[in-house]
Amino acid sequence: MKTINIGILGYGVVGAGVAKLLKQKKQLLESRTGAVLNLKTIADIDITTDRGVDLGTTALVSDANEIIHDPAIDIIVETIGGDTIAKTFILNALENKKHVITANKALLARFGNDLVKTARENQVDLAFEASCGGCMPIIKSLRESLVANDINVMSAILNGTCNYILTKISKDGSSFEDALKDAQDLGFAEAEPSLDIDGFDTAHKLAILNSLAHGMEINLNDIHVEGIRNITPMDIAFAKEFGYTIKLLAIGKIHGNHVEARVHPTMISDSNPLSHVDQSMNAIAIEADATGQTMLYGHGAGMMPTASAVLSDIADIARNIISGIKRRVPILGYPEDNIKSIPILPMEELHTRYYLRFEAQDHPGVLSKISGILGKNNISIKSVHQKGRNTNGKVPIVMITHIAKEALVQAALKEISTADSVVGDPVVIRIEETDQE
Amino acid sequence: MKTINIGILGYGVVGAGVAKLLKQKKQLLESRTGAVLNLKTIADIDITTDRGVDLGTTALVSDANEIIHDPAIDIIVETIGGDTIAKTFILNALENKKHVITANKALLARFGNDLVKTARENQVDLAFEASCGGCMPIIKSLRESLVANDINVMSAILNGTCNYILTKISKDGSSFEDALKDAQDLGFAEAEPSLDIDGFDTAHKLAILNSLAHGMEINLNDIHVEGIRNITPMDIAFAKEFGYTIKLLAIGKIHGNHVEARVHPTMISDSNPLSHVDQSMNAIAIEADATGQTMLYGHGAGMMPTASAVLSDIADIARNIISGIKRRVPILGYPEDNIKSIPILPMEELHTRYYLRFEAQDHPGVLSKISGILGKNNISIKSVHQKGRNTNGKVPIVMITHIAKEALVQAALKEISTADSVVGDPVVIRIEETDQE
Repeated sequence: MKTINIGILGYGVVGAGVAKLLKQKKQLLESRTGAVLNLKTIADIDITTDRGVDLGTTALVSDANEIIHDPAIDIIVETIGGDTIAKTFILNALENKKHVITANKALLARFGNDLVKTARENQVDLAFEASCGGCMPIIKSLRESLVANDINVMSAILNGTCNYILTKISKDGSSFEDALKDAQDLGFAEAEPSLDIDGFDTAHKLAILNSLAHGMEINLNDIHVEGIRNITPMDIAFAKEFGYTIKLLAIGKIHGNHVEARVHPTMISDSNPLSHVDQSMNAIAIEADATGQTMLYGHGAGMMPTASAVLSDIADIARNIISGIKRRVPILGYPEDNIKSIPILPMEELHTRYYLRFEAQDHPGVLSKISGILGKNNISIKSVHQKGRNTNGKVPIVMITHIAKEALVQAALKEISTADSVVGDPVVIRIEETDQE
Repeated sequence: MKTINIGILGYGVVGAGVAKLLKQKKQLLESRTGAVLNLKTIADIDITTDRGVDLGTTALVSDANEIIHDPAIDIIVETIGGDTIAKTFILNALENKKHVITANKALLARFGNDLVKTARENQVDLAFEASCGGCMPIIKSLRESLVANDINVMSAILNGTCNYILTKISKDGSSFEDALKDAQDLGFAEAEPSLDIDGFDTAHKLAILNSLAHGMEINLNDIHVEGIRNITPMDIAFAKEFGYTIKLLAIGKIHGNHVEARVHPTMISDSNPLSHVDQSMNAIAIEADATGQTMLYGHGAGMMPTASAVLSDIADIARNIISGIKRRVPILGYPEDNIKSIPILPMEELHTRYYLRFEAQDHPGVLSKISGILGKNNISIKSVHQKGRNTNGKVPIVMITHIAKEALVQAALKEISTADSVVGDPVVIRIEETDQE
């Protein structure tokens, strides 16, 4: 039986998960692939912390170059994270003709095009099933299963921390701060949570998925990103009254020769299957022209779900090696020569529906003032709710608009927020509707 | 650019869908795979009906042998259905060294082991992504993505007709007969609906999925099958009161050296994501040891969703042909020599929870009589509801049991149904709980 040697760079949670699964499932993997998947070496600057994995004959070394330059190693798994040293190691590994597997979405979103180019120049594979949606086979689905589809809409919950916090606010009426603290206590959120709660992690994933869906260069910079810091129990309660749930969504849509790509808190109705995705679970809904609506659902992070996705990449590459081939499926789903540069629609050009909440002085004329400014900006109102108790002479005014243009909504809100009768900044949450609605 | 020639056997809805998608997405497929996927010939005994596809240079012939024996054809797609002539054609095609793609779950469930053997002898591929769950990539997920997982539980809604009917009864309170008629009027159900509503179609799919999940020979005969003919609005209403929804589920579980495999109406709670899968949509939930709970959701049938799945198989085989390889992934996910014969647990040995409804005379002592018989059979009752109007001196008695053994439940029900105070046959619906509950 052919032996395929594997090295892991980074022995943290994900690295240990991959090592553990390779060891635990040695027999299963041999039985399925017909090859021995041998974990030869793990490298980490910390070689003393016990990760609870029985390493057997696997070497644990402190110098990544012992893996990168080992001629016996076929596949290198990078689990260091970040975009500094991990980038250098991956580039070196590719240049040494190693197939590379990574879960590093930040790196892929920022420097993926360069990595793809280097992999091509060296005729090796670069695989990253674990980078988006954890154990959900979203990368494989886009590259292989949906091959005869135009992907019209992707809308996805891709960050378990945010989804946990929003679920907590929604079910318990917690404040954002309390929900975040709870998520941190349970290990769902980092001590420095910005990457998650400000939407950047979700944007990294959307940049990767957009590329695979449309055969376009990875473009992170033009994605509009808003996080969930300003979501209040009040807005979640109003959303519920209108039949909506608030989720942090990654939204990617194709419109002829440009792509809509945005990450922000979004109201979705109960008929949208994403509305039932709670706690730290992730899901991605795809509307493609042949399949219609589909969805994948699963754990988007965590030691073993992530390891499961890495192992599917290892098995794929192992099956290629056994067959004597490589680069069977193009890294981004399309051969590199066919990858286009598709521009992302400027956010101001977006057309969608909006939930608007104003804190207004409780006296006659306020509603007329607000709706006048909206009307002047071509924003037509579907429904208005002026409800709740008068608090210190102020009442919340909630409006749902028909489809309106983002630039006009922003202009109107700017004007409204300067009105004497409106207190503070208005709350704006975009509403996403599926084809069924 | 390499040309790969394709032939389609059968020009009905699915065959026409595959032809349509191959034509419509010619450019996209070339751009993605780097090959020309040329639909050379379609064979059907009816060559006069217009299927609305612009066939261009594709030949439409009445003799399947013009495809099976055409040395230029690389891939044959079988869309005839059934297990008589389709079986002969597929065997002949495999013997002629053609790669074969089929959506024919009835054939695969009954004769799949033979087809796999013939494909192996002739060193060609046999692919069937469209056979289970329509456009959902469940076959690929089991064969490739979940490769490092033990699949502990699969529970799935795999028949859109049944799910439509159950949704209709649940939302509108229709009778089964009215809901079936409605499904037939809308084209969701056949004039002869038995294959769907009696659960056989779901069992065919479960037989295939079990094989892929566990590396076992396909075994249809030992799967316990019940359909949805006896589901009443009353039981759906009671289910709702207990927080349950009724779905026709395919359930596959592994227990050491045997497999649990059953198809029947099942009560699931709101926390089970399958409970939100309505109308004609399908979904499969998988609990695997590394991934935890995952779910795929999508259209399980229909012209274009099915064609999308067939096209993913075509692209896979095309990518193999371009790479100069074949049989890269074993047909059943494990190399044929590693496929085991794993027995299916006899239904009498099942341990699960039960919903029981009795129609009883409204007089004292009935409940004591019923619960006495249940107790004698080691069936412990979690809750009892004796409610609803007295109709002609009868009342429904509803019970939810703790986990009990099927053989004992059946024995108890037999005894109870002979009691003077109980009218007619008791209703039995099994309850499925996820790990979260």
